[in-house]
Amino acid sequence: MRILTGIQASGRPHLGNILGAIRPAVALSKQPENESFLFIADLHTLVSLKDGEQLKQNTYAIAAAWLACGFDSDKNYFYRQSKLAGYHTELMWYLSCFAPFPMLANATSFKEKSEKLGSVNAGLFTYPVLQAADIMLYDAHLVPVGKDQRQHLEMTRDLGGAFNRQYGEEILVLPEARIDEAVMTIPGIDGQKMSKSYGNYIDIFLDEKELLKVVKKIVTDATPLEEPKNPDTCNVFKLYELVADKEEIAAMRAKYLAGGFGYGHAKQELHAVLVRVFAKERELFNYYMNNIDELDAKLKLGEEKAEEIAKVTMERVRKALHF
Amino acid sequence: MRILTGIQASGRPHLGNILGAIRPAVALSKQPENESFLFIADLHTLVSLKDGEQLKQNTYAIAAAWLACGFDSDKNYFYRQSKLAGYHTELMWYLSCFAPFPMLANATSFKEKSEKLGSVNAGLFTYPVLQAADIMLYDAHLVPVGKDQRQHLEMTRDLGGAFNRQYGEEILVLPEARIDEAVMTIPGIDGQKMSKSYGNYIDIFLDEKELLKVVKKIVTDATPLEEPKNPDTCNVFKLYELVADKEEIAAMRAKYLAGGFGYGHAKQELHAVLVRVFAKERELFNYYMNNIDELDAKLKLGEEKAEEIAKVTMERVRKALHF
Repeated sequence: MRILTGIQASGRPHLGNILGAIRPAVALSKQPENESFLFIADLHTLVSLKDGEQLKQNTYAIAAAWLACGFDSDKNYFYRQSKLAGYHTELMWYLSCFAPFPMLANATSFKEKSEKLGSVNAGLFTYPVLQAADIMLYDAHLVPVGKDQRQHLEMTRDLGGAFNRQYGEEILVLPEARIDEAVMTIPGIDGQKMSKSYGNYIDIFLDEKELLKVVKKIVTDATPLEEPKNPDTCNVFKLYELVADKEEIAAMRAKYLAGGFGYGHAKQELHAVLVRVFAKERELFNYYMNNIDELDAKLKLGEEKAEEIAKVTMERVRKALHF
Repeated sequence: MRILTGIQASGRPHLGNILGAIRPAVALSKQPENESFLFIADLHTLVSLKDGEQLKQNTYAIAAAWLACGFDSDKNYFYRQSKLAGYHTELMWYLSCFAPFPMLANATSFKEKSEKLGSVNAGLFTYPVLQAADIMLYDAHLVPVGKDQRQHLEMTRDLGGAFNRQYGEEILVLPEARIDEAVMTIPGIDGQKMSKSYGNYIDIFLDEKELLKVVKKIVTDATPLEEPKNPDTCNVFKLYELVADKEEIAAMRAKYLAGGFGYGHAKQELHAVLVRVFAKERELFNYYMNNIDELDAKLKLGEEKAEEIAKVTMERVRKALHF
């Protein structure tokens, strides 16, 4: 089973990304029957981020984070979209010629972003067509998506179907969406869903001091230190529950209920657990960020592997088109 | 001076194309100070023509016609866009990220075609962005265009300008339009402008018998054979004027004015002149169409030459983007 995931190069992954997306994807990619195609969608990111140096730094940070979280780039496929740009955009053009204008104009995501941003570019408009190319270029069978991306997957199938009806049923593989209904929502330091755009995220790759500063910013209520506290309404406890082990969680719960245990203490313990639980990830992340050449070499290898697949698909597509 | 011209692969060139577009372009390409980039825009054609075999036949017919009309593919650049699709579409994507949605939505040509066709695809919408990539990929200085294409050239300059403002003034060369105000309008067999879409064209590459059939269809008035006729309102004479030499034109004018000279005679003479004037072109065209391998070899050579230029531009572009 070929599973494909694209990651926006919009910044370095935070705790919410790691628990909600990276860990489940890594688990899936470890299953022997699966081949995971994981790519950094830097062409897509260009729609909203024009600063090339920033884009590059983000790309490295994402690559380092995924490798640090155990993604096996030898067993799977790990690549930057931009390094195979010609293949992605060529297939995109062919699919564009099968994409009804109203389908794209009425896409929920496009309409929402247009309204929010006011001015948008053609890249945002044709984004779902590039996405369709990203997926079908590698004959992906399965694409894990959030509910908000379900429509884009349907478009991919529509475009692939229209192309196949014209040129032959076997040309493009139509992917299935895997909608994770039960995807974990990770609370941010303000209790809202943790998100880069809300600025409420915890970056577990910060050094210990900086990480503590962020943990200390977690919003709590004004219950005095001596009084018992409700763990189930506390943002610190909710985050602690997601990373600590069972005994630790039970112990912390008891301390909350007993009173005489302040939020400051809870935050210190959360910080300690984060540093411990992600010790290996933090070490590996720093290693890769200090050894960009090694990171580059791993990506380059992934790009060579991915290119072999992309080439075969495009030969099939071009032959069908008589090009 | 680099002059760039793209030709839609929508059918084999007719007399109107040859007199109005091919001959002036060939003349320009022969000047020693010019390098002409002439490409068959088969990626663009895919917007409206999905039949791959038809597209391929059209492509060969166009290539044969241009070579038959004297285009020197050794001195210049002659290539199929589809053979360099990765370069064209990759640059197109980058430019898409700088193309304001309303600029494309309000483009005159898009609005007209949308209204006329009812349903359009995303390829038609983003067409001017691909066109911009076609031009700037080869650092073209000059693009001869009809008045209807002037807006697209302005878009090219806008997109290139926006890209350069972000990444550096020297990255993309902004082309100038060369608007031919005095472009010849060639009348079709019904007196309207000769056009593929009106079905009123003369295909000079038909065999002599078929060509005569078409010439005989030229619309004339009902003046009887014996009476004098007005050459300046006659479609046969107007076409004759465009191809015959001075003495012949003067002689034909005299016959019209004298009377006793019928439209049937005039059509026979026009036919004879077409066959004589285009003798070399007809022969070469047939030669190439019967020797597709040779045609392919010439195009392949052109594509290799064009790729060298495209590569250099894309290296510059990718470097600017930090890709």
